[in-house]
Amino acid sequence: MSAKQIRIGIIGAGRIGKVHAETIAFRLPEAEPVVIADVKVQAAQEVAARCGIARVANTAEEVIADRNVDAVLICSSTDTHADLVVAAAKAGKHIFCEKPIDHSLAKIDRALAAVKTAGVKLQVGFNRRFDPNFARVRQAVASGEIGAPHLMHIISRDPAPPPPAYVKVSGGIFLDMTIHDFDMARFLIGDEVEEIYTAGGVMVDPEIGKAGDLDTALIVLRFKNGVIGTIDNSRKAVYGYDQRVEILGSGGSIATANCYPNEAVVSTAKEVRRDLPLNFFMERYTESFVNELRAFVKAVAEDKPTPVTGMDGRIPVVMGLAARKSHDERRPVRLSEIG
Amino acid sequence: MSAKQIRIGIIGAGRIGKVHAETIAFRLPEAEPVVIADVKVQAAQEVAARCGIARVANTAEEVIADRNVDAVLICSSTDTHADLVVAAAKAGKHIFCEKPIDHSLAKIDRALAAVKTAGVKLQVGFNRRFDPNFARVRQAVASGEIGAPHLMHIISRDPAPPPPAYVKVSGGIFLDMTIHDFDMARFLIGDEVEEIYTAGGVMVDPEIGKAGDLDTALIVLRFKNGVIGTIDNSRKAVYGYDQRVEILGSGGSIATANCYPNEAVVSTAKEVRRDLPLNFFMERYTESFVNELRAFVKAVAEDKPTPVTGMDGRIPVVMGLAARKSHDERRPVRLSEIG
Amino acid sequence: MSAKQIRIGIIGAGRIGKVHAETIAFRLPEAEPVVIADVKVQAAQEVAARCGIARVANTAEEVIADRNVDAVLICSSTDTHADLVVAAAKAGKHIFCEKPIDHSLAKIDRALAAVKTAGVKLQVGFNRRFDPNFARVRQAVASGEIGAPHLMHIISRDPAPPPPAYVKVSGGIFLDMTIHDFDMARFLIGDEVEEIYTAGGVMVDPEIGKAGDLDTALIVLRFKNGVIGTIDNSRKAVYGYDQRVEILGSGGSIATANCYPNEAVVSTAKEVRRDLPLNFFMERYTESFVNELRAFVKAVAEDKPTPVTGMDGRIPVVMGLAARKSHDERRPVRLSEIG
Amino acid sequence: MSAKQIRIGIIGAGRIGKVHAETIAFRLPEAEPVVIADVKVQAAQEVAARCGIARVANTAEEVIADRNVDAVLICSSTDTHADLVVAAAKAGKHIFCEKPIDHSLAKIDRALAAVKTAGVKLQVGFNRRFDPNFARVRQAVASGEIGAPHLMHIISRDPAPPPPAYVKVSGGIFLDMTIHDFDMARFLIGDEVEEIYTAGGVMVDPEIGKAGDLDTALIVLRFKNGVIGTIDNSRKAVYGYDQRVEILGSGGSIATANCYPNEAVVSTAKEVRRDLPLNFFMERYTESFVNELRAFVKAVAEDKPTPVTGMDGRIPVVMGLAARKSHDERRPVRLSEIG
Repeated sequence: MSAKQIRIGIIGAGRIGKVHAETIAFRLPEAEPVVIADVKVQAAQEVAARCGIARVANTAEEVIADRNVDAVLICSSTDTHADLVVAAAKAGKHIFCEKPIDHSLAKIDRALAAVKTAGVKLQVGFNRRFDPNFARVRQAVASGEIGAPHLMHIISRDPAPPPPAYVKVSGGIFLDMTIHDFDMARFLIGDEVEEIYTAGGVMVDPEIGKAGDLDTALIVLRFKNGVIGTIDNSRKAVYGYDQRVEILGSGGSIATANCYPNEAVVSTAKEVRRDLPLNFFMERYTESFVNELRAFVKAVAEDKPTPVTGMDGRIPVVMGLAARKSHDERRPVRLSEIG
Repeated sequence: MSAKQIRIGIIGAGRIGKVHAETIAFRLPEAEPVVIADVKVQAAQEVAARCGIARVANTAEEVIADRNVDAVLICSSTDTHADLVVAAAKAGKHIFCEKPIDHSLAKIDRALAAVKTAGVKLQVGFNRRFDPNFARVRQAVASGEIGAPHLMHIISRDPAPPPPAYVKVSGGIFLDMTIHDFDMARFLIGDEVEEIYTAGGVMVDPEIGKAGDLDTALIVLRFKNGVIGTIDNSRKAVYGYDQRVEILGSGGSIATANCYPNEAVVSTAKEVRRDLPLNFFMERYTESFVNELRAFVKAVAEDKPTPVTGMDGRIPVVMGLAARKSHDERRPVRLSEIG
Repeated sequence: MSAKQIRIGIIGAGRIGKVHAETIAFRLPEAEPVVIADVKVQAAQEVAARCGIARVANTAEEVIADRNVDAVLICSSTDTHADLVVAAAKAGKHIFCEKPIDHSLAKIDRALAAVKTAGVKLQVGFNRRFDPNFARVRQAVASGEIGAPHLMHIISRDPAPPPPAYVKVSGGIFLDMTIHDFDMARFLIGDEVEEIYTAGGVMVDPEIGKAGDLDTALIVLRFKNGVIGTIDNSRKAVYGYDQRVEILGSGGSIATANCYPNEAVVSTAKEVRRDLPLNFFMERYTESFVNELRAFVKAVAEDKPTPVTGMDGRIPVVMGLAARKSHDERRPVRLSEIG
Repeated sequence: MSAKQIRIGIIGAGRIGKVHAETIAFRLPEAEPVVIADVKVQAAQEVAARCGIARVANTAEEVIADRNVDAVLICSSTDTHADLVVAAAKAGKHIFCEKPIDHSLAKIDRALAAVKTAGVKLQVGFNRRFDPNFARVRQAVASGEIGAPHLMHIISRDPAPPPPAYVKVSGGIFLDMTIHDFDMARFLIGDEVEEIYTAGGVMVDPEIGKAGDLDTALIVLRFKNGVIGTIDNSRKAVYGYDQRVEILGSGGSIATANCYPNEAVVSTAKEVRRDLPLNFFMERYTESFVNELRAFVKAVAEDKPTPVTGMDGRIPVVMGLAARKSHDERRPVRLSEIG
């Protein structure tokens, strides 16, 4: 296609890097993947072959330095995000960075400062905003279809807990899992949270408790505009990935159901049943991954703000820290206590 | 019918008294309404005429004193409940008392002591336990169908707020409205709550706030067995009466939907729609009102414990007081702080 | 209650007679059961005891002759209906007669003539018109909510076939089972059927085939106004009683779902499921049985036409005969061929 | 990618040709579009530019003659299909041909003979077999999950009628629209239809009637194995594209619901509603278009039979002719009468 295509360098060829590479290669004619790198060279080579990416770089730095690259996708491990954001910003590349930017607010602030100085664009990978269900809920709130919001609930349960090794480096449930829900809460209500109260426990897997983490949590959010919300997290819903929201407003409510692989209902002598919901995020959020990259590419191409900014990446980390503090101290914690 | 019928005296011919009178008269062959009284004599007379009740008494005391009466239904205003329980107990009558027994724990304790001393039966009117939906949820928990419970949610929203005059004497949202949900929480999980955290506000009607009450509340419950639950209350869901529960367990989840006047779905050029849910408790809980009285009559007839005891009437009041205290002090409150 | 109560004599104390007796006794204050008879005297006695019916008569004729009786309910076996209608009409009693009036058009015509001559009221027991689901569908058609109707589908499946002995005297599936659906079709569309085509078979139980009957049928109806409809009948839906309708109109569609004992959905590691639908007509159509008798009593009390007339009882028999003829001759049959 | 990619030539760059081109280009790494032609050259050029197709040919014949082409997709107008199948077969190219192959059985038979002689593969574009909903239904039948099938219903309604000009060349509703449903019926039941009865009319648009066609039809199918089925067709369901099936079997039933753009339910003071279903086949069957081409490419690559054969393309045309004959003669018509 034409030279107008945004040329993308991809850092990280793991699960999410591969999804993004395929999206760029096969779903977004307006962008083109030109280089990819991964700490496991073979992984990068396989994705490159599948997606027709011309160059496999040896390091993330080489991807950033590639003169053909307009924008980089940072899909490497979380501990590398902040430094890579800084490096990419200094190289004048636009940046799409997977969540979270970092677990440390200091590192996040350094990264955001570099982005600001360089004047490049940054979008954080909160893909769920681009899911048709949640986008529809946001639309109902923003348009006044359900009046002024009063109460909000987010149900967000994984089908199975991650392996203990992952739990240890994950930053804890609030920064690893709930962070998506913190973003969702802000996105849906269109306002900031002031105070957080957490009631959590270890109910799924004692190993998670031994690692100092929780596997089940109920989080109460108080927004500045008065809205009260909850987030319900579990690391294990045996029936699959459970991703729903519900908002009560002065003029009505909106609630979403889960997504299923088909719409068939079987009735037998024993029960009326349907197949389990889509099992995990790769199936459930397929469309949102395409939509978020399309939005990023469009923001770059048209020189407009990205729909998920650096500050949108920072605030959920603050919320995660507050949630943990609330759990530890068994009291509501104001975000202003965190920084 | 035969002399084995339990003979019932009814105190109070208001909305709920009338429902119970009709149930006894027309739906429960095993019981018979023999006397009724109300502070408004005409109300008592009308119900008596409609339900074939032979005698209209002048006072509650006359009902209690009636030698034909085996058991009394106390359906008068809340402030009279405790004294009438005491009087009925002293007269040796079995007692069905509408919720709450009282707003004061001291008065409740006095009433329960009288019941104990007299050895009569007492059932408190937590009718929702007898609703087919919630009974099915309890069954799923009790049978292990969804494994060990982890998280519980109760949604309980009224279609419209009560008049300000009522709000002032109601005891507040927690003792008037949430009390049903406190009972439901205990019933569903089969365990006691240890700690309550409340996030509430005035979002529906400023008059309710002026009366010192809330109209919207989100309550977090920590059970002794580790389960975490929420209760979502609003005085105004414009689409009608919203009464749902959901429990996540180690082996699955169970969730109930609202009840509708019909199962018809209309699809037009504008939307796919159905009629609003059953609007309020008289329609929504019709069957439960019959079921609870059937259970009471059966307990009396067979000399067995009632399914909702005096202690079941007391504990939700403790919970309501704790919920209010949590709101006032913006911190989680343990039930042991209340008494 | 007052002397304005309509005094009812009940002929037949079998399954449906018992339901009607309880309705009159416990649910309709505006009517009163005064006498009952059954060929099995003990059955009549039991119902009388349960429902507080003062007199047990020895014969149907005695019920009809009872001077205290304003109206009779004919709930005896089908072969007795027509003669009892004639007798009751001659005695000046209003008549509620279970469906079908008879399998013979000649006998039906004789009965209707007697009713006409006597000037008494006759209502035929097509209770499903009074079901909230189907009443809602009729309302959508009558009000124009879905525009002009084009296509109509009735699904009507029993949970299990009747015993072979019953099949032999039932008049066949079309007069025994489909007759309700023929009435429903006329009721929903508000127009007459001109032509019927039947495709049927024996798929459930070979014994039914040996008795000369079908157990599975698909019937196409062409209405005078151009609407095309289908009726889907099966004697065996293993998941329970399946009773749904759907209408497509120029302005939209309306479709009903089955009714369930509760609204709970259970999600496990294997499936998302709910309990089976209400199993059979006694549970599924409970409310409609009350509603139809209330309408009958009201028509008598207010001297107004009944909502289901003698002609409404006759036409479905014509349709049943046409359906069978279509099956036998494997061609569409016009109702005008039947008479 | 590697030389193992199947090289595809595309004939027709209209709506469906464009969909297939994008699928080959962006969704199927195992295939590659190498040449495209359309009677409107500009349309072909635009698709080529979007999908990175190297060559735009002047004619269908040039596509077929292209030595780089392994297989052709015939997406041109129906009247050209049969001749192009013959030409492609003679050129030794594998063939994916949109439905219907032709309206004339003679021309279809000539095309199938050419395919047989050449020994090339032919797949007909009955994409709905590859829809997850209908594939799930087929699985339930094939696996015995619902026992032996007894009754089958297909609902297939378009959101709006095609323009009159199209209707005139469409071959009529049965060959243009119902043909998909005829295929679906055979696919779901896994058996052949013996006899068809049609009840149809002109209810949507009188212009369609003037063109000698119907816009509303109810078709009864009798399968050789005894199953009875219906197809419900309307050219206008104002709420959108309505595509459902339901099968009753000896062991249960399976039914599919429509697909929606989101799973959100809005409850207001007026109604409980959701957005309209996906409006038309491009949205509703997106995934099936990818799946059918993947299956075709796989059959070619692995030298295996295609999942939708030439005979699968022929039989629905026979059924369409029978359905029309039944309508014209107002009687059931056996397929053996057609040829």
